[in-house]
Amino acid sequence: MQRRRTRRSVAGAGERALIARLGVLLPKEPRWVAIGRGEDDCAALDLGGSDWTLVTCDAQVEGTHFERAWIDARTLGRRAAAVNLSDIAAMGGEPRAAVVSLLLRRALDTMWYEGIMRGLGEHFAEQGTALVGGNLARASRHIVVDVTLLGRVRPDRCVRRRGAQPGDRVLVTGHPGESAAGLARLRRGGTTRDRLRRRFLDPQPRVAAGQLLAAGGVTAMIDLSDGISRDVGHLCRASDVGVRIDVERLPVTPLLRRAAEALGKSAFDFVLHGGEDYELLCTAPPRRVPALQRRLRERARLPLTEIGEIRPASEGRSLHSGERRRPLEARGFEHFG
Amino acid sequence: MQRRRTRRSVAGAGERALIARLGVLLPKEPRWVAIGRGEDDCAALDLGGSDWTLVTCDAQVEGTHFERAWIDARTLGRRAAAVNLSDIAAMGGEPRAAVVSLLLRRALDTMWYEGIMRGLGEHFAEQGTALVGGNLARASRHIVVDVTLLGRVRPDRCVRRRGAQPGDRVLVTGHPGESAAGLARLRRGGTTRDRLRRRFLDPQPRVAAGQLLAAGGVTAMIDLSDGISRDVGHLCRASDVGVRIDVERLPVTPLLRRAAEALGKSAFDFVLHGGEDYELLCTAPPRRVPALQRRLRERARLPLTEIGEIRPASEGRSLHSGERRRPLEARGFEHFG
Repeated sequence: MQRRRTRRSVAGAGERALIARLGVLLPKEPRWVAIGRGEDDCAALDLGGSDWTLVTCDAQVEGTHFERAWIDARTLGRRAAAVNLSDIAAMGGEPRAAVVSLLLRRALDTMWYEGIMRGLGEHFAEQGTALVGGNLARASRHIVVDVTLLGRVRPDRCVRRRGAQPGDRVLVTGHPGESAAGLARLRRGGTTRDRLRRRFLDPQPRVAAGQLLAAGGVTAMIDLSDGISRDVGHLCRASDVGVRIDVERLPVTPLLRRAAEALGKSAFDFVLHGGEDYELLCTAPPRRVPALQRRLRERARLPLTEIGEIRPASEGRSLHSGERRRPLEARGFEHFG
Repeated sequence: MQRRRTRRSVAGAGERALIARLGVLLPKEPRWVAIGRGEDDCAALDLGGSDWTLVTCDAQVEGTHFERAWIDARTLGRRAAAVNLSDIAAMGGEPRAAVVSLLLRRALDTMWYEGIMRGLGEHFAEQGTALVGGNLARASRHIVVDVTLLGRVRPDRCVRRRGAQPGDRVLVTGHPGESAAGLARLRRGGTTRDRLRRRFLDPQPRVAAGQLLAAGGVTAMIDLSDGISRDVGHLCRASDVGVRIDVERLPVTPLLRRAAEALGKSAFDFVLHGGEDYELLCTAPPRRVPALQRRLRERARLPLTEIGEIRPASEGRSLHSGERRRPLEARGFEHFG
C-alpha cells in the first residue's frame, strides 16, 4: 500500500523548516564554493582570482517589507540597495555590481519604476557599485524589488559569523533600535519626515565600517537585520560559543528614549529586539577594542559600543542587568502582517 | 507655471520604453564593467582575475511564462535554470553559481517549493553549477522563480551580439520552432507528455555547444528566446549589419511539420517566429562553417544549420524564398495573455 502524503502549505511549514530541507533537496556544493548557502550573510566563491567573489540576494516585497503609503519610490530603491549592501559589509567586502528584478503591476504609475531605478542607481553608485543588468516582469498585485549583489573580498580579510572566541568583546556600530522605533511610529500612521522614520525607511549600510573592522582584526561579524537578540544568536551558533549582553551598556540615544516613552515602550527592548537597523555587530579580543573604536570614530564617524562578552558555549546566552541575570531570548523582529 | 506631469502606467509605457529610460535614470557604468546593461545576453565584469565574470538574471512568472496547470514543480525549477544557463551559453561562457529568489503564496502546497528547488538544483548540477544562496518571500498570488546566474569566460573567447561581418553565414543549432508548436498544443488544452511540449516546458540550454562555437571562431552569437526573426534583428542591430534568411534552408523536422499541419499553421512560421527555444544563433565566415558543423555534431550531437548570410547594413533584413524576396518582419514570440 502506498502511504499518502500529508498536504502542507508553505506558511504551515514555516521558512526555517523549508530552508532546512535544502540539504536534502539540493546536490552538494562543489569545492570552489568557499562559503555555501545558509552559512553566512553572503556566499563566497573562489573563481580563480586572488579575491573571493561574494554573492547575496534580498528582495523588498510590498506588504511584507514596506507599504506604499509609507515610502516613496526613490527611497524604496535606496532601501532595496541598502539591505544587500549590508550583507557585503558584514563580511568586510567591497560591493561591485548588482542586477535587479522588478515586478510591477501593469496599472502602476511609471513614477514608481523611475523612482525605484533612480534610488537603486544612486545608492549603489555611492558605494562604487554598478547596476549592470535587470529584468522587468508584471506582477499580479504587489511591487517586488529583488536585488542580487556581487562583491569581492580578500580571503584573509573575509569575516564570518564563525570565529568568535570566549573572552572576545561584543561590539555594535551606531544606534540600533532607532529603526524599529521608526517603524512603530509609521504603524501609528505617522509620516516619513523625522529621523527615526528615515532610519527605518532609508537605512545606511555600514560598508566602509565593515572593511575597517575587518582590517582591524574583528573575529566574527553579522549585520543587524533581525535585531541584536536574534542576530547575536546566529553568530553564537556559527561560532559555537555563548554570550553575555549587559543591558546597561546598550547605547540608547536621547531621541530613542523620548520616542520609546511616547510609544509607551522600553527603549532597551527596541535596541535589543528591534530589527532592520543594518548596523554591524562584531566580536574582537579586548586588546583590539580601543584601536577599533578609534578607527571607526575617525574614519567612519561611527560609535562602536561594547555591549557584552563572548562566553563558553556551556554558559549559553544571557542578559545581565546589575546583579540580575536572565536568559537572552531571541525575540527578534516581527514583520508586520 | 509648473508643467503638470501626465500620468502613465507601466503597461502603457511598454517595456522597451522603460528600459530605454535607464540611460537617464542610472549613473554611468564604471570602467571595469566590460559589457554593461542591455548590451548583450549577460553583463561581463572585469573583477581582476584572468577571466571575466558573467552575470544574468531572468524570472519565471506564473501567468506570464507558465501556467500551473501545464507544468509540474520540478520542470518549473528546471526551466528557471535553463533560461539563465542559455544566456551564459550565448556568450560562450561557463556557468558557475546561482542564487534564487522564490515568491510563493502562503497557502501553496510545499510540494511546489520542494519540486522547484529540486529542479533548479538538478539542472544546475548537470552544468557544473552550484546553487549557493537564495531568498524566500511570500507573494500575493503568482509563483515567481527569479534566478541570478554567474559564469565566467576568457575575454578572448567571449562572443557577443556584435561582431558579425557581411559575408558571414548565419547558423542555428538544433530545431527551433518545436517549442512554439509545443506551446500552441498546451494552449489547446493538451497535457505535457509529448516531445514538442517538453521542448517548450523543459528546454535544453546549449552550454557545451556555446563553448564549442566560441572556441571554433564564431563572430557573433545570441540565444533564441524571442524567435529567430526578432533575435537575428538584435544581432544585426548590435553588429550594424543586414541579413538575408533563406526560407528553404530553415530546418523543419517531420514532427514539427505534422504538428503544424494538425494545428492549421505554417511550420516555417514556427521556426522563424516561434520563441523560447533556447537554441543558439551565430555567425561565422564561410570557411569555418564545415569545421563548426563537424565539431558540434561530434562533440555536442547537435545539427548546426546554415540558414542565411550576413549582408551590409544598407541591404536591411530580408527573407528569401526561391526568387522571391520580402522584408524580414520581427514578429517574435507573443507571451500569452
